[in-house]
Amino acid sequence: MSHTVAVVGVTGAVGQEMLTCLEERRYPFTDLRLFASPRSAGQKVTHQGKTYTVEALAPGCFKGVNVALFSAGASISREWAPKAVEQGTVVVDNSSAFRYEKEIPLVVPEINPQAAFEHRGIIANPNCTTIIIAVGIYPLHKKAGLKRVVAATYQAASGAGAKAMEELRTQTREVLDGKSVKPGVFPTQIAFNLFPHIDVFVEDDFTKEEMKVTWESRKIMGLPGLNVVTTAVRVPVLRAHSAAVFLEFERPITPAEAREVLKSAPGVKLVDDPKEKLYPTPLRASGQDDVLVGRIRPDKTVQHGLAIFVAGDQLRKGAATNAVQIAELLLKKNR
Amino acid sequence: MSHTVAVVGVTGAVGQEMLTCLEERRYPFTDLRLFASPRSAGQKVTHQGKTYTVEALAPGCFKGVNVALFSAGASISREWAPKAVEQGTVVVDNSSAFRYEKEIPLVVPEINPQAAFEHRGIIANPNCTTIIIAVGIYPLHKKAGLKRVVAATYQAASGAGAKAMEELRTQTREVLDGKSVKPGVFPTQIAFNLFPHIDVFVEDDFTKEEMKVTWESRKIMGLPGLNVVTTAVRVPVLRAHSAAVFLEFERPITPAEAREVLKSAPGVKLVDDPKEKLYPTPLRASGQDDVLVGRIRPDKTVQHGLAIFVAGDQLRKGAATNAVQIAELLLKKNR
Repeated sequence: MSHTVAVVGVTGAVGQEMLTCLEERRYPFTDLRLFASPRSAGQKVTHQGKTYTVEALAPGCFKGVNVALFSAGASISREWAPKAVEQGTVVVDNSSAFRYEKEIPLVVPEINPQAAFEHRGIIANPNCTTIIIAVGIYPLHKKAGLKRVVAATYQAASGAGAKAMEELRTQTREVLDGKSVKPGVFPTQIAFNLFPHIDVFVEDDFTKEEMKVTWESRKIMGLPGLNVVTTAVRVPVLRAHSAAVFLEFERPITPAEAREVLKSAPGVKLVDDPKEKLYPTPLRASGQDDVLVGRIRPDKTVQHGLAIFVAGDQLRKGAATNAVQIAELLLKKNR
Repeated sequence: MSHTVAVVGVTGAVGQEMLTCLEERRYPFTDLRLFASPRSAGQKVTHQGKTYTVEALAPGCFKGVNVALFSAGASISREWAPKAVEQGTVVVDNSSAFRYEKEIPLVVPEINPQAAFEHRGIIANPNCTTIIIAVGIYPLHKKAGLKRVVAATYQAASGAGAKAMEELRTQTREVLDGKSVKPGVFPTQIAFNLFPHIDVFVEDDFTKEEMKVTWESRKIMGLPGLNVVTTAVRVPVLRAHSAAVFLEFERPITPAEAREVLKSAPGVKLVDDPKEKLYPTPLRASGQDDVLVGRIRPDKTVQHGLAIFVAGDQLRKGAATNAVQIAELLLKKNR
């Protein structure tokens, strides 16, 4: 049976990682189509021994494509995803374009796989920070019932794309060389600095990034009334996001019970032996599909509280892996 | 009137900053004595046009010293501060050696200046992260009554001393050059990485750094029952600590009211105009005595909640400035 996969935004940081995930996970495509901006069209990309030519998006370009993984920004998704659907393609969209539409499923396969099958052509891939936090806390929710989530994030440059990662490298070298630096992709200096400003400012002076964690956690976990408050901070790390998360539950849960639950939770790796210097870090999470969870402590300042620290590769589980996992779900269902 | 000041640990990052603070604040000493480890003894240090010779600590060395600012680690303080007191010196100690002793005042001049006058020879300077958070939240406490503080910190290399700052610089260059790196001062790689591990692990798997924020906030603010929970994280920033802080109050307080209070609060600079990209960052806080407070938002997930972001120069207000301010308090009292 023929099965054609397309990657839209293949020259970006997430697009590149999507190719890696397709290969590593032996995703069974028979043909691969690679799309990017007109500027990148014509470039050759070698993947699993075959050479592909990057194409620009054009009317009719999705003909024969079974699944398209979009990661080229919200405006490209808004314009081209509906066109792909018209041509019979199922779109897994990594942008925020469709995440908050009621009829469009927002899926983390470890949490709400069944939602993927209710799609009408488009399935949204959640925000990277939200995926990483949600995968870490959902098993604890099932055990003790989540009431409130307080999160402070430590988000890597990769979340702002390949150019942002390059800006961090270049700027860092400039600072080390005593040169003056000028922000480009980022709103202010990222080298040896950090700032609580990711995405635009929306309601009550929260950023959209901060609100995404609230909106998307509720939708993915099916908890429309869940209390979630976040401060989202960009840090001078290349890839992999971290978060300090403070949880309040309906029922008692000890750190030992939390560890027991997380040990066997899908998509989670328990890394919690502080005396051996084992705890989640972005470097440890980089290149891994699992979300690392550790530093599990009782939070006695509140009833049934836990404090944890999570880290996950933003480009992998936070984006590419999750998208490919969704495509795999659909494929299994169709068999 | 003669007034001799000593700096113990003068070759360290905080010791150096103490000299800068004494000069900038025109602290009126008539003589200055500089102490460091035997390895550094004999070094010449020029300060305000005069040259001083660094001395090793030795029996009787504090004779004639009115005030000694200690910043050479807890074990040096434990051994030498009592000896200095015996010789009539008042010690302002930046280490954690005496902070939790009931009879020893722990002072932030903007919060509990009166406590400084109850000393029996030693006054403790609080932990840097605690000072920065406490200065930012105490004015809000006076307005609305603090009930609970949840903090996630972003702590600079400077908190681990001058060698740690050098390790961040050196390691970062090694990573940029594609070389392999080996942790030295830090427990794991700091370049383009971060880790939730500062100081040793103590009760319930919290670090001592995390517990310091609880223990010291309570003592400084005179709120023995205050609920405080912290996750302390080291980030690849050279100097100035930041924290995402989530506050719960007894009484209602709006972001507008919080801004009004903070505008005129001592030691605080309100930096809260996100649409103009104005919010606290470590780079903005570096070299300043004020603690920057911003990103003030209503936290509607809890009754009377606020979310804020603070940044303060760890070497200045977090250490050297606060110590010199304490010495100034004593001097005023004696006049």
